[in-house]
Amino acid sequence: MQLSDMNKEELKSWLEDVKAQYSDFRSQGLCLNMSRGNPCKEQLELSVDMLNVFNDGDFSSENGIDVRNYGMLDGIPEAKKLFSDMIGASEDEVIIFGNSSLNAMFWAVQTAFNKGILGGKPWSELDKVKFLCPVPGYDRHFKITEFFGVEMINIPMTPTGPDMDMIEKLVADDDSIKGIWCVPQYSNPDGISYSDETVKRFAALKPAAKDFRIFWDNAYCIHHLTDKPKLILNILDEAKKCGNENIVYMFASTSKVTFPGAGVAVMAASRENIDELKKYLGISIISYDKMNQLRHVKFFGTFENMCEHMKKHRDIIKPKFDLVCEMLEKEIAPLGIGEWTVPQGGYFISFNALEGCAKKIVKLCADAGVTLTGAGATFPYGKDPEDKNIRLAPTYPSLEDLAKAMQLFVICVKIASAEKLLAE
Amino acid sequence: MQLSDMNKEELKSWLEDVKAQYSDFRSQGLCLNMSRGNPCKEQLELSVDMLNVFNDGDFSSENGIDVRNYGMLDGIPEAKKLFSDMIGASEDEVIIFGNSSLNAMFWAVQTAFNKGILGGKPWSELDKVKFLCPVPGYDRHFKITEFFGVEMINIPMTPTGPDMDMIEKLVADDDSIKGIWCVPQYSNPDGISYSDETVKRFAALKPAAKDFRIFWDNAYCIHHLTDKPKLILNILDEAKKCGNENIVYMFASTSKVTFPGAGVAVMAASRENIDELKKYLGISIISYDKMNQLRHVKFFGTFENMCEHMKKHRDIIKPKFDLVCEMLEKEIAPLGIGEWTVPQGGYFISFNALEGCAKKIVKLCADAGVTLTGAGATFPYGKDPEDKNIRLAPTYPSLEDLAKAMQLFVICVKIASAEKLLAE
Repeated sequence: MQLSDMNKEELKSWLEDVKAQYSDFRSQGLCLNMSRGNPCKEQLELSVDMLNVFNDGDFSSENGIDVRNYGMLDGIPEAKKLFSDMIGASEDEVIIFGNSSLNAMFWAVQTAFNKGILGGKPWSELDKVKFLCPVPGYDRHFKITEFFGVEMINIPMTPTGPDMDMIEKLVADDDSIKGIWCVPQYSNPDGISYSDETVKRFAALKPAAKDFRIFWDNAYCIHHLTDKPKLILNILDEAKKCGNENIVYMFASTSKVTFPGAGVAVMAASRENIDELKKYLGISIISYDKMNQLRHVKFFGTFENMCEHMKKHRDIIKPKFDLVCEMLEKEIAPLGIGEWTVPQGGYFISFNALEGCAKKIVKLCADAGVTLTGAGATFPYGKDPEDKNIRLAPTYPSLEDLAKAMQLFVICVKIASAEKLLAE
Repeated sequence: MQLSDMNKEELKSWLEDVKAQYSDFRSQGLCLNMSRGNPCKEQLELSVDMLNVFNDGDFSSENGIDVRNYGMLDGIPEAKKLFSDMIGASEDEVIIFGNSSLNAMFWAVQTAFNKGILGGKPWSELDKVKFLCPVPGYDRHFKITEFFGVEMINIPMTPTGPDMDMIEKLVADDDSIKGIWCVPQYSNPDGISYSDETVKRFAALKPAAKDFRIFWDNAYCIHHLTDKPKLILNILDEAKKCGNENIVYMFASTSKVTFPGAGVAVMAASRENIDELKKYLGISIISYDKMNQLRHVKFFGTFENMCEHMKKHRDIIKPKFDLVCEMLEKEIAPLGIGEWTVPQGGYFISFNALEGCAKKIVKLCADAGVTLTGAGATFPYGKDPEDKNIRLAPTYPSLEDLAKAMQLFVICVKIASAEKLLAE
């Protein structure tokens, strides 16, 4: 029976039962964290052998440079090879960064503000700079543009990617729109992979602003949960076909391949974009950690081996995604009080509660010892206009802890939903 | 006989001899680099055992956090302990960064431009921002302020540090002066350590701009070439005594302690400064490389051990400094065509040629296969008003190569000086 089909008396009595279950949970003194997309300990162990690759005493890059010293600002050649394969570009279209692709994105935005892009005015000199933000999306993207005072415009997600009709119209009409944040493969948090048509339409965009850039954060490009993943099209290739190759900045990293704290990040773009960005790179740093770049290259050897390595991650985390989806299917689906995605990769499950319930659910969980991503975090300025989206991050807890946390979560969804229906 | 005492005929004939020596060198096809302060291979070997510290399989910070994962944005507690000892601050007055203190400085300037400092207007909203630049100084400092469009004002160095009379007057009168670049211990390139009086006067500065900051780049704080180093005063302590503790941002790193490409950087400042900066830190990165932080802590254990480690560096590089100074003393001093410092620490020897000769000397060296730091690089905008300063970096080449490079260097100094005198 759907919750909305109960009469008030039935609902009240049902709610009493659920609240009793909630009280039981509170008394258990749980302390679990499902707030961020952190790999679990077993995943971190997969890459520990990477720390032994220098036992051979060889610290030379293939070009003869000692990776322990300064130099090679944009990365050592063998790292460019490995990570250009990963991101889908050629070796002269990439810059290898430090441990954080977010830091590379921040830097790219900041450089546009200070110096402009390919002859355009520095964004800091413009009256207004706007970004399009597919929602729900990644909170840390939105924090970057918020930091720089960018006005953010919500773009609804569809099962094939962001609403392209809306995007095409907006960028054609308004030259103060300078960028869009995208996580094209297994979007954060929806887990949606952009369709071929979506990627082609992005690649062919004709914005009024010549310095409009698609920030294509391909964070989960090899983070599949299935054996036969549906890969997105390569947007840089597609853009080249349209003579539009300057429109995209691509990013990826090994944060969730090796170590979140000690991975390697990469950016790719057209030669023209990359050549300009390299001019500014050396102002802010002498060189990134090339020992860690070579560590990754020696550990993986090839991109194919990196993809094989990801299957070990999948074996660890797939059961966790299954558990979450099964519990939602069993406990929430019959009541009609929520919708969610069943992702084929990435790190999240996006749950949509009844309108106006997300904040309450997150608070109820927190009060009973389970920390979720803050409600609203998946929207610019932390404001979910319908207060319904909650990002679930199942990878970090053990299966046992995750089961507990999800039992609590469904109870909290039930309470918030029933109270909403009773108040109507 | 001083070169200026020769008559034109003597000088011409002398120059012919020197030019013949130069031709000999050109025919040798040298390819040596003395341009940057790079440690040599033997120095890099000193820290290679640091790569084995995780053989125990223990990746836990003392607070229980797994350093391989996300989190601990401002550093793990044991790294804060070690590096606060190094920089001279308490553990709640530091932020631990990635591998680059230059990157931390860039970020601190950029944050001031975007958000202001402690309630002051963002510098980006001001008509004019000026920085004081003791000269000769570090080219990469000047590049940062140039990038942000800051007007740079040269301040002459004296044997006790920058000209404090000039600084005190300028900052008191002009509230658009927002900062100064300092390398207080073994300044780059002069090797001058600021006197106690200089540090006290810096600590007591009363600038018109409340958001004026001293960028105190203590890059060579433990990089001594003598057994009994004269340490500079701790400016943060001195500033506290004057109730002026917000005036300074301090920086240091292990780039020249462990690995230039893979060290750890630290920033220190008052609690009030650090607390504000931490608010912005998480916009640009999730966390720095904590594995590398813990690697350093496990390798050194204590700050005292780090200082002992520096003696091994000294044993390797001191003979190189001696060689350069001895050759200059023997070949240049009697001719009266140059002056230089005899540094007690740091990475450079600063050579002042006759006015108008620096560019020519650097070009002559380059044409014969020895790369020096570009003439002018030690001044803002790359403009040495007297064209006389050349930064010599003796650490990277072998003693044998260094001897060759210095033989060439003194020949080039002689040629440029004689040609100048002949043209007068």
